[in-house]
Amino acid sequence: MSGTKANAGVEPARVLADLRELKALTGDEHGAQRVAWTPVWLKARSWFEGKLDEIAKTAPRLERRYDAAGNLWATLPGESAQALLMGGHLDSVPNGGWLDGCLGVLTALEVLRGMAEVYEGRPPMTIRVVDWADEEGARFGRSLFGSSAFAGAHSIAADRGRTDREGMTLEAALKACGYDVERIGEAAVEQKDAAAYLELHIEQGPVLEGLGLPLAVVLGTKGVERHAITFHGQEAHSGSTPMTVRRDALAAAAKLALEIRPIARKRSHDSVATMGSVKTFPGIVTAVVGRCETTLDMRDLYPEILAGMFADARAASERFAAEEGCTVEWQRIWSIEPIPFDPKLIELATEAVKEVAGAAPLLPSGPLHDAAEVSRAGIPTVMVFVQSLNGLSHNSAEDTKEEHLAMAVKAFGGLAARTLAEFA
Amino acid sequence: MSGTKANAGVEPARVLADLRELKALTGDEHGAQRVAWTPVWLKARSWFEGKLDEIAKTAPRLERRYDAAGNLWATLPGESAQALLMGGHLDSVPNGGWLDGCLGVLTALEVLRGMAEVYEGRPPMTIRVVDWADEEGARFGRSLFGSSAFAGAHSIAADRGRTDREGMTLEAALKACGYDVERIGEAAVEQKDAAAYLELHIEQGPVLEGLGLPLAVVLGTKGVERHAITFHGQEAHSGSTPMTVRRDALAAAAKLALEIRPIARKRSHDSVATMGSVKTFPGIVTAVVGRCETTLDMRDLYPEILAGMFADARAASERFAAEEGCTVEWQRIWSIEPIPFDPKLIELATEAVKEVAGAAPLLPSGPLHDAAEVSRAGIPTVMVFVQSLNGLSHNSAEDTKEEHLAMAVKAFGGLAARTLAEFA
Repeated sequence: MSGTKANAGVEPARVLADLRELKALTGDEHGAQRVAWTPVWLKARSWFEGKLDEIAKTAPRLERRYDAAGNLWATLPGESAQALLMGGHLDSVPNGGWLDGCLGVLTALEVLRGMAEVYEGRPPMTIRVVDWADEEGARFGRSLFGSSAFAGAHSIAADRGRTDREGMTLEAALKACGYDVERIGEAAVEQKDAAAYLELHIEQGPVLEGLGLPLAVVLGTKGVERHAITFHGQEAHSGSTPMTVRRDALAAAAKLALEIRPIARKRSHDSVATMGSVKTFPGIVTAVVGRCETTLDMRDLYPEILAGMFADARAASERFAAEEGCTVEWQRIWSIEPIPFDPKLIELATEAVKEVAGAAPLLPSGPLHDAAEVSRAGIPTVMVFVQSLNGLSHNSAEDTKEEHLAMAVKAFGGLAARTLAEFA
Repeated sequence: MSGTKANAGVEPARVLADLRELKALTGDEHGAQRVAWTPVWLKARSWFEGKLDEIAKTAPRLERRYDAAGNLWATLPGESAQALLMGGHLDSVPNGGWLDGCLGVLTALEVLRGMAEVYEGRPPMTIRVVDWADEEGARFGRSLFGSSAFAGAHSIAADRGRTDREGMTLEAALKACGYDVERIGEAAVEQKDAAAYLELHIEQGPVLEGLGLPLAVVLGTKGVERHAITFHGQEAHSGSTPMTVRRDALAAAAKLALEIRPIARKRSHDSVATMGSVKTFPGIVTAVVGRCETTLDMRDLYPEILAGMFADARAASERFAAEEGCTVEWQRIWSIEPIPFDPKLIELATEAVKEVAGAAPLLPSGPLHDAAEVSRAGIPTVMVFVQSLNGLSHNSAEDTKEEHLAMAVKAFGGLAARTLAEFA
């Protein structure tokens, strides 16, 4: 027996070896290519099943199944039916990083492996590792696919007609993988006996690196207000239209692009607002912009702050439109409320992280994660973040120091052990 | 005989009838479709040849030819070999207006027709009507094609490889119409004996409408500085990247989009600066803009003002890039110096316009015109503008009141008659 009950028997070296194997198997020179519902993703899952088969040699009660939404569950029944859930997602964006998502799955696998060893195949409570299906939404634009189905928060009526770049529908892609889009809600049965959910993820941002710390405990995921904002002015000839009579839709949009920054900054250090896309029409060098389509993404952990940012941005856009002789229209693309994680689990995670890293800063998560959906389902949830180098993610430059990965695995093992002690 | 020598015998009703015929023949519900080097354009020219044939019935010395760059010349030899040139362009942008370009050609045709009548087929100086080839550059992005070849200012080494959206090269399109791209410079022979060039055009802007006046005399064409400006920042996740550490390329571009307006306004009422295109990369709702590609078009009639605007915009872009932790690069797309028209012809045009309209405001032209190329060739040149409704052009809503068109034709006839008297 290689581990101890205090850290669930985890050995970081095995996680690193698994990460490297997966990278070699499913990545290329441009990065990870495990886009959900594609052959490379299926290959990753098949490789993962092989890992489970190895564990099953010494833990014969380990079972696995795919639920109705394509989530892969490995379940080791324990003394108690109450289940500790841990996981992440094997799927990646195209040309993705080697850690995003799969670090969570493979660390959960290591906890399962460690606990199977420490408890000789029968832990005090049931241990379940989940590989959520299509967290990224990279192909069909519907992120958190599997976890939202699990949580009963799926929106398949709106999503089944989504198509990829080749025009294939989400419905057809699911069918090709053996899933019936009409039945994905049945994944909610997996909530049964779930006592807690833990997830380890890279930060995907620069905060921990800025603090000079390896690990953080996540307070919850920020709420998101995501809007398409279009300014309508008047297309006009760039040479013949005096400055004084222009109705320049770009000018109104530019004012908003700058104004969202004080709107976010005045509220809290953690508030963010981003204009990520600007499209100009007709969009030629010789014409004043007649129509400017922009997107705005605003996030905060506190609902009242998020609502205030939204109201301010909307008012500012209307003021700028009026100043420029334009009109503006807003269309909500998507929104989600802030999702706070479980106070007790935050406490346990803080202990576990401090034990390994000395300090345990508490951060909100800007990116969404499957953990948010699990938390929405009422299951006590917490996440641990490990530092990302240069804050990069979603590309092949994504990286984390090996020593930090090792600390993350140890801390996550410690969190799992504490959760077992608390919830068993 | 229907006209008099004082207005070159022009009858506005014939121009209006011709304009309507051409519109019916070469337009559809989306507007004019006379894109150069296409069948519809060739049809327009063939129709125009028919008009010349009619005039030739009473003016048998009228000849016509296409020069090496595809410009169509109708020449009525006069007592003097010195030639009065008048024209415009039959080509249009896709879904263009019914007046842009062809008003100049058909009014010149009417002056030819009137003078052929008034002078019984032998005017005091040679009269030449020109339909410049491909003024718009709509298909290959090379405007003033024929007139720049005439002026010896063509840039075929740079342009021959230009392609349209289907990938056809300019060279191949010319060949299909019977022209050899290597020989277009030979169009310069048409400069021989050219004494003056006159062109009537719609304003394509809102100034005359704002003044409540139908006609203007054009001082010259503004110089143009046209640049591609790219800001490089750092792509980052919209949720996980604090506002304080962002290097947002869009923010730097937005500052410039706003700053070019005071830069233009502080100098002269006529200075213009336009950011017509903004492209964001990766350009998705969930990412801080890592790269922002913009275009800037600046124009003024005075070289020193234009140079000052360019220097200010460049300095501002570097300041904004530095403020936002970005870098900026400038690439000149195209530039042309301001081209002043001929003082004597401006005087004659002022008299002719005042006679018809009472007032003759002097305006610079923001848009370029074939007249600019002719003027660059050292041939005394002037233009007359007629009011555009709502300042609109380059689309099917382009229009001018019929009474204003009639006044424009009369004034242009008066200008032609005065020029004949001055230059014969």
